[in-house]
Amino acid sequence: MDDCIFCKIIRGEIPSTKIYEDGDAFAFLDIAPVNVGHTLVVPKQHFKNVYETPDEVLQKVMTAAKKIAEALKALPSDGVNVTINNDSAAGQVVFHFHVHVIPRIAGDGFPLWHSRRPYNEGEAKGTAEKIMRGL
Amino acid sequence: MDDCIFCKIIRGEIPSTKIYEDGDAFAFLDIAPVNVGHTLVVPKQHFKNVYETPDEVLQKVMTAAKKIAEALKALPSDGVNVTINNDSAAGQVVFHFHVHVIPRIAGDGFPLWHSRRPYNEGEAKGTAEKIMRGL
Repeated sequence: MDDCIFCKIIRGEIPSTKIYEDGDAFAFLDIAPVNVGHTLVVPKQHFKNVYETPDEVLQKVMTAAKKIAEALKALPSDGVNVTINNDSAAGQVVFHFHVHVIPRIAGDGFPLWHSRRPYNEGEAKGTAEKIMRGL
Repeated sequence: MDDCIFCKIIRGEIPSTKIYEDGDAFAFLDIAPVNVGHTLVVPKQHFKNVYETPDEVLQKVMTAAKKIAEALKALPSDGVNVTINNDSAAGQVVFHFHVHVIPRIAGDGFPLWHSRRPYNEGEAKGTAEKIMRGL
């Protein structure tokens, strides 16, 4: 897409620190990393989010993300998060599908999630039924 | 594996709220959801984390995760995070590879990451070189 920042990065119109490229996927360093080495893996073709990304493209991008996760592990780091944010409410900012691959250091103080709680009586079953209707 | 809690769930030895199952993947509700509908997608075969999961298994699990993300979007929710935590430092607690698929509600107050900062001069290039040596 003409006005997509990630498409421009893939085309080389905007500079990036490239980590990896193959026929389907392109990976580069996030310019504002959670931790040093935080990499974004994107399909070369433009898709908005995981919903719009065809299965075979998702599979190729994830295979690349796995390669990068292995590489980040040896950065060295103590762990790696692989995260896809879909839609604004989930933290998506650039609407070209991308996978964050983030090296983690023990005690780096990035709590992923807060306020977890168990399900109330019957709530899990009802929730499952709602989800399964969408499958 | 005999003592793996997710293997026991897959075998039906521990109850779970099942969301989806196919030949390769199994999905069930997390018992302590970040948001209601938080689902875990796992390979039926035991692998410790993304590094140990063969590409073809990762691809099948991610295809299932995408199906579930689409279903969660229609829960309804305003967005979906798809997250894999590898190793304790990254938040992995159960060492059977699993993908979190988490519905997000606008303003639900789960900040994913903190303390992002830009790279210093030359730091991005050096970091990229280190990662690429591991590819």
